[in-house]
Amino acid sequence: MANFLEKIEAIRDKNNSLVCVGLDVELTKIPKFLLQKDDPIFEFNKIIIDNTLDLVSAYKPNFAFYEAYGEEGLSALRKTRNYIPEDIPVIIDAKRGDIGNTARMSANFFLEDLNFDGITVNPYMGFDAIEPFLKYKDKCIFILCLTSNPSANDFEYFSDGKQTLYEKVATKTIEWNNNKNCGLVVGATRKEGLQRVREIASNLPLLIPGIGAQGGSVEEVVTYGGKNIIINSSRAIIYASSEKDFGEKARESAFKLRDEINRFRKNI
Amino acid sequence: MANFLEKIEAIRDKNNSLVCVGLDVELTKIPKFLLQKDDPIFEFNKIIIDNTLDLVSAYKPNFAFYEAYGEEGLSALRKTRNYIPEDIPVIIDAKRGDIGNTARMSANFFLEDLNFDGITVNPYMGFDAIEPFLKYKDKCIFILCLTSNPSANDFEYFSDGKQTLYEKVATKTIEWNNNKNCGLVVGATRKEGLQRVREIASNLPLLIPGIGAQGGSVEEVVTYGGKNIIINSSRAIIYASSEKDFGEKARESAFKLRDEINRFRKNI
Repeated sequence: MANFLEKIEAIRDKNNSLVCVGLDVELTKIPKFLLQKDDPIFEFNKIIIDNTLDLVSAYKPNFAFYEAYGEEGLSALRKTRNYIPEDIPVIIDAKRGDIGNTARMSANFFLEDLNFDGITVNPYMGFDAIEPFLKYKDKCIFILCLTSNPSANDFEYFSDGKQTLYEKVATKTIEWNNNKNCGLVVGATRKEGLQRVREIASNLPLLIPGIGAQGGSVEEVVTYGGKNIIINSSRAIIYASSEKDFGEKARESAFKLRDEINRFRKNI
Repeated sequence: MANFLEKIEAIRDKNNSLVCVGLDVELTKIPKFLLQKDDPIFEFNKIIIDNTLDLVSAYKPNFAFYEAYGEEGLSALRKTRNYIPEDIPVIIDAKRGDIGNTARMSANFFLEDLNFDGITVNPYMGFDAIEPFLKYKDKCIFILCLTSNPSANDFEYFSDGKQTLYEKVATKTIEWNNNKNCGLVVGATRKEGLQRVREIASNLPLLIPGIGAQGGSVEEVVTYGGKNIIINSSRAIIYASSEKDFGEKARESAFKLRDEINRFRKNI
């Protein structure tokens, strides 16, 4: 079985794409006609996936959107994960971080039971909250580093005069990368941050949310993030239309993003 | 309806207790005879609750232990929450932290749908990742501050020369406490940290994990944490026995902890 890096490299080449589609489904936002189906969330995802699977390098469901619908949401997530073709990596956005025995439960659930290829984790509690995930050598563990939201300023830029917290997280991640399975999350709205992270971690895969609805620039992301990046877009793709044509519109939007990214990729 | 602080004050007086029982259920650790039941996790929790409800001031299930069992785990969590008497606050240990629209989904799920009285959240991403929780005025939002695990050293003690990250989190939490619904999580293994947090946040409720299996001292926790604390114990109580007598043994263990805490409470 290919590991995460091999898998994403292969699909990147095959689909000529750095696009990751964020499957963050809200029942209040999907086309109304789907609500009559048995499993509207899964039906929605199926059509999004059918329409984008030749245009992406990854999918990223955020767990919070599935747990919010309880047992049915969890079941829809499981079906969605199994529906995605084996050669496309699926990253579960879970932002987990807890003490060892709890982290082991989470790692086992997300990376074995649900068989996700990657997961996002939160660094606040330090190494032992992340170690149980790092043991999965074939997966990719994306550690939150510098996030796209405005309040990233509250703590992530906290500095000891030599480095900021987010730089320290990037530096530590390099130490933790013995299994070559670490990645970092850096927001698209953070141009200088992307540059700085690339100085510290030149080869690590970066998961980059924050273009589209959150305002990040595709040109800056590609220019400063380099080749090994996964650019996530959720709302701008999956909610491109709220009518029966939402699949086609999602495809158009993914297509446009892929091509926009690729135009700037030529320059790097 | 009473808010969290009124509720916990009332039950603290009624049960003369600062004990919180952590309901972190693993199927590999519960008595074997329960595995034949339809819902072993809920059956286990029911017996633990029946045997401890006059000895506690709160219960705290950790979400990771329930999600790990998928749809059945989620259903067991829901039943457990509904089984706990209305006058005992239930804190969901979820350590959530994500951008606004995602945090809104989580807050709605945990604090409305499942109707938990409190929740733990992760501060890394800053205010806007926590704000959607803070809007629930009658709940208590416990922000991770200084944790009990060894790797807390990696980032939580990071300092700008004036204050450490965990002190900054405590300071910010005071700013965010407009609805008087913030609390902090401080590990029992951090004596100096508890002292320091009490200097910054003298009145905030502290949720204190880390006694028992993790090695924190009850005397230090009570001495430095003061009156408004919630002392969590999970494994030492719920797994006090792996035989048919696990309910009685859990009761004995909770009883012992309550009394040990109360001996030191007399001195403060």
